Amino acid sequence: MHRVKVRVVEDALDANNTIASANRADFDREGVTVLNLMSAPGAGKTTLLERALPGLSVRPGVLEGDVAGSLDADRLADRHIPVTQLNTDQGFGGECHLDANMVRSALPSLPLADIDLLVIENVGNLVCPAEFRVGEDVRVMVAAITEGEDKPLKYPLMYRTCELVLINKVDLLPHLEVDLEELLANIDAVHPGVETLVVSARTGEGVEEWRRWLAARVARRAAAPVA
Amino acid sequence: MHRVKVRVVEDALDANNTIASANRADFDREGVTVLNLMSAPGAGKTTLLERALPGLSVRPGVLEGDVAGSLDADRLADRHIPVTQLNTDQGFGGECHLDANMVRSALPSLPLADIDLLVIENVGNLVCPAEFRVGEDVRVMVAAITEGEDKPLKYPLMYRTCELVLINKVDLLPHLEVDLEELLANIDAVHPGVETLVVSARTGEGVEEWRRWLAARVARRAAAPVA
Repeated sequence: MHRVKVRVVEDALDANNTIASANRADFDREGVTVLNLMSAPGAGKTTLLERALPGLSVRPGVLEGDVAGSLDADRLADRHIPVTQLNTDQGFGGECHLDANMVRSALPSLPLADIDLLVIENVGNLVCPAEFRVGEDVRVMVAAITEGEDKPLKYPLMYRTCELVLINKVDLLPHLEVDLEELLANIDAVHPGVETLVVSARTGEGVEEWRRWLAARVARRAAAPVA
Repeated sequence: MHRVKVRVVEDALDANNTIASANRADFDREGVTVLNLMSAPGAGKTTLLERALPGLSVRPGVLEGDVAGSLDADRLADRHIPVTQLNTDQGFGGECHLDANMVRSALPSLPLADIDLLVIENVGNLVCPAEFRVGEDVRVMVAAITEGEDKPLKYPLMYRTCELVLINKVDLLPHLEVDLEELLANIDAVHPGVETLVVSARTGEGVEEWRRWLAARVARRAAAPVA
């Protein structure tokens, strides 16, 4: 019985990966670098994009994943960033992650010819988004320092699957009983050597480094011919 | 095709509800009030339990749901609170919620005869836990003020499905650009009239009110014969 269940899940992930590969091929054809941005709810994904994308040396676009509403998309549109909204609440109560098929359905609405970097802002959730590839080149997560030091140990797959962890809201450190060094050690324990950046969307600390990281990631694609 | 998918989802939820009813009957037989405690990752569920459960006028027990590890269970056991650990990482990368069957599998490990209140601490996630009944009498959620004012609008089902919203980390309000009144208005917009309590696990603000709320909820069962 358990075996059957696992088989069904594997089939679903296989189907997702097939569609993710098709998305990836389309992104490659347009020369767009695609970043899957993930975090818990309220960790600051949108605010970090509001801060970093204006003034970026490459042309960004955003695909906004939300269960309901278009609050984040509206905020980014206000900053003149090309943004497409994708809501997941057609499912029962709302899907807790984006999958490759949802992203595929949004492709015709994306201005791929006019951007170099597409940021896909996933649904706020530390579990399922890590399990579904959507056709991205790179995965980045935002960990708010207010969530505590222990989250990498409790949600290890999310931390393992990312190339960069942005540690946000560090301006609040003086007011918290949270140990930044312990958080960094826990991240390194579940994903040895992963890059981290300490940032504050509120004060702007680390935002220029995040911007440089994004531009370098886009430049890396431009330098390396598609395999 | 879409119709078929919806049918499959409905069948899964029907099966879950059948098992949830069986759990509920077992809890009723033992006279245990069951609370399903939900929130985003790092909102402070465990810390609020650490603060409120010792000194409670009724006998508490906790079922700890986590993707991986036993960090929270260990913290509660250190406070001499009877606690049972339930990990969800047998699934692909970990289930993002508890379902009725997982809770059913833990029933033999729970000291139901020796407790009046069972708190089921769900996996940190604002989407799927709201979709799966586990046999609880009441649902409570923790919303950390650090998550921002907009979360009720983005994750409405979770807010609609709870009888009480604990607004935690309010000690940080002076250091945030978050408006508590706006958060309260957004909660009321998606779930008119729902009870809220403003608390700080760190300073202890509101913890005695939370304790009284819990004791009153247990007393309500004792007063009303099971239907």
